Amino acid sequence: MADGFPKTRLRIVLAPGVAFGPGKADLLQGIAETGSIRAAGNRLRMSYKRAWSLVGDMNTQMAEPVVVTEKGGSGGGGGSRLTPFGEVLLTRFRKIEVRLVQEAAEDLASLAAMAKPPLATAENAE
Amino acid sequence: MADGFPKTRLRIVLAPGVAFGPGKADLLQGIAETGSIRAAGNRLRMSYKRAWSLVGDMNTQMAEPVVVTEKGGSGGGGGSRLTPFGEVLLTRFRKIEVRLVQEAAEDLASLAAMAKPPLATAENAE
Repeated sequence: MADGFPKTRLRIVLAPGVAFGPGKADLLQGIAETGSIRAAGNRLRMSYKRAWSLVGDMNTQMAEPVVVTEKGGSGGGGGSRLTPFGEVLLTRFRKIEVRLVQEAAEDLASLAAMAKPPLATAENAE
Repeated sequence: MADGFPKTRLRIVLAPGVAFGPGKADLLQGIAETGSIRAAGNRLRMSYKRAWSLVGDMNTQMAEPVVVTEKGGSGGGGGSRLTPFGEVLLTRFRKIEVRLVQEAAEDLASLAAMAKPPLATAENAE
């Protein structure tokens, strides 16, 4: 089995039209680590527009804002950070992800074993 | 909280380029229940082409075929059914889904409670 597989991607639909999944979680984590929506988006190869849009969705769909942005600052880009509410949101999601992978490890491995073994290709051999 | 929420959608990447998630699982279940790829696709509002394409992906990416189709028959459409291998694949995936929802129920509810309560709209009131 290839390294790092199986991988799980968990999306949780919290309410009608309100979903939280790996994309938003990685974006929040990136904002927490870089202090910038743009930098967090870049890391995920996500356009600035897309990153802003996701932050906007979260800020309006969740009971409290998850990201706050300070205008201006050097470079004019301001800085962004998670609110305590946003930190809790991310932590709770990561906890569910981790538990899933730990507790279902055996079942996940059984499932992954049902995939065709990868062919040795030039790309794989490199 | 709205009925039936939170919902989880779990996608498992078994190997590079080989994923199995709710769409394929529902399609396999539909084939098992209807004996027809077309009928299973219809039920999921999935085009026939898309349903066939997903079945083709599974049959080539998994270690054994998951769906077999008999040509001809009344109506000319033949019939399709899961192989024993396909049944095991579906059962293993459903087991992981069920365990996730059961074991993470409390954490999922905590996460869902962070969404903004839905507004009473004309649509909701109907």
